[in-house]
Amino acid sequence: MTEPAAAQTVTAAILVIGDEILSGRTKDKNIGYIAEYLTNIGVDVREVRVVPDIEEEIIVALDALRHRYTYVFTTGGIGPTHDDITADCVAKAFGVTIDVDPRARAMLLTRIAEKDLNEARLRMARIPVGADLIVNKVSSAPGFRIGNVHVMAGVPTIMQSMLDEVAPTLKTGVKMLSESVRADLREGDIGTPLGAIAKAHPDVMIGSYPFQDEGRPNTNIVIRSRDPAKLAAAKSAVEDMLAQVRAGLRQTA
Amino acid sequence: MTEPAAAQTVTAAILVIGDEILSGRTKDKNIGYIAEYLTNIGVDVREVRVVPDIEEEIIVALDALRHRYTYVFTTGGIGPTHDDITADCVAKAFGVTIDVDPRARAMLLTRIAEKDLNEARLRMARIPVGADLIVNKVSSAPGFRIGNVHVMAGVPTIMQSMLDEVAPTLKTGVKMLSESVRADLREGDIGTPLGAIAKAHPDVMIGSYPFQDEGRPNTNIVIRSRDPAKLAAAKSAVEDMLAQVRAGLRQTA
Repeated sequence: MTEPAAAQTVTAAILVIGDEILSGRTKDKNIGYIAEYLTNIGVDVREVRVVPDIEEEIIVALDALRHRYTYVFTTGGIGPTHDDITADCVAKAFGVTIDVDPRARAMLLTRIAEKDLNEARLRMARIPVGADLIVNKVSSAPGFRIGNVHVMAGVPTIMQSMLDEVAPTLKTGVKMLSESVRADLREGDIGTPLGAIAKAHPDVMIGSYPFQDEGRPNTNIVIRSRDPAKLAAAKSAVEDMLAQVRAGLRQTA
Repeated sequence: MTEPAAAQTVTAAILVIGDEILSGRTKDKNIGYIAEYLTNIGVDVREVRVVPDIEEEIIVALDALRHRYTYVFTTGGIGPTHDDITADCVAKAFGVTIDVDPRARAMLLTRIAEKDLNEARLRMARIPVGADLIVNKVSSAPGFRIGNVHVMAGVPTIMQSMLDEVAPTLKTGVKMLSESVRADLREGDIGTPLGAIAKAHPDVMIGSYPFQDEGRPNTNIVIRSRDPAKLAAAKSAVEDMLAQVRAGLRQTA
């Protein structure tokens, strides 16, 4: 699928950090949530990576993504234990120092008694120098933004609350518009004419997704474009084609 | 976390291909399934990437992963429509030609009448030259293996059936053993002593995962090693530490 070259796009990548995702012990719930959320506000997610709790892996992935996309959103690795190394890795990637941040410490103290603010909990106030904090309304330990990288928690409820904080600060592109058409046909019945429509509408992205519809194979056609007129034209072409194919199959039957 | 250098490890990466995952329209269910499945048979998943239906993106990711890990498992993009470009991309990455494979065509004919085997459906029989087929017991259109890359469907039921076909052909390493200990403590109460245990047991990976236990914060400690004796020693150290911390908190309370 091609992308209209002139469209004003804002892009993003998601970097999920955590051994527990790669071992399958924890099933990620953040990728789909962030992807849908950003798409809805006009930010295109172009890539996702999941990496283990290993410093070099995190830094290499972060550098690859942050230089390529408008924004990077990380999840995981900002808790109080030894395997929470995301903040330190981000500091290294950006070449800045990291230390307990008085603003972050103050946030922790809104929920944690000073006598309980031990060395482990203070890890959650370690923030790379120059970063802005991302408020955590759920459990107080903040995320942070440095450059184009947003560092968020891995626990879904906390991540979601942080994303709500971050969203108003993002620049957003012309929103990708999307229409879904139920084909009432099998994918294999429409593949060739659908491909011809996709070729004839190069500024529109057309995807085909088979699904089981009450036990019978069916297909959703998803048509996406930033231009409402082009989207409508492609949708109309898809609907006409579907009607023709259905009529042809009725004649054959 | 460090990994015992001497352990016999077999590694893998998962490459999820599809615009629908990046837009959030479809929530991926394959990453967690494959990760858990491979972990259970002694294959370590080290990285996951999700890329769009764009040839160059698919090829670049595939090349990065296949040269680095023992195996790559892809999902998505092997259906009958124009946006199903995975097989062609894999052929390009391996520098081989691709055409309708008589074995794959015969598989399709077990479920599709010859008169319905149109150009679109025949796309599903396009297989890179030199690849082995992966039987699809659900809907007949096969996946394939070429080199160390396994190309599977994106529909979870089909992917799962293909993975069952593939699993017996994989070499597997010494299985990663795992023990989980419920701390009955908050993560912040144990972060420092847990970090000391992790440092004292460098051949064991120790992860700390907070969770809400009937509304109260609790923590699971996951201890992993390929060596049963080292795993038991680390688990015992964790349990002793937890008992000490609990006793200390009872005294303070």
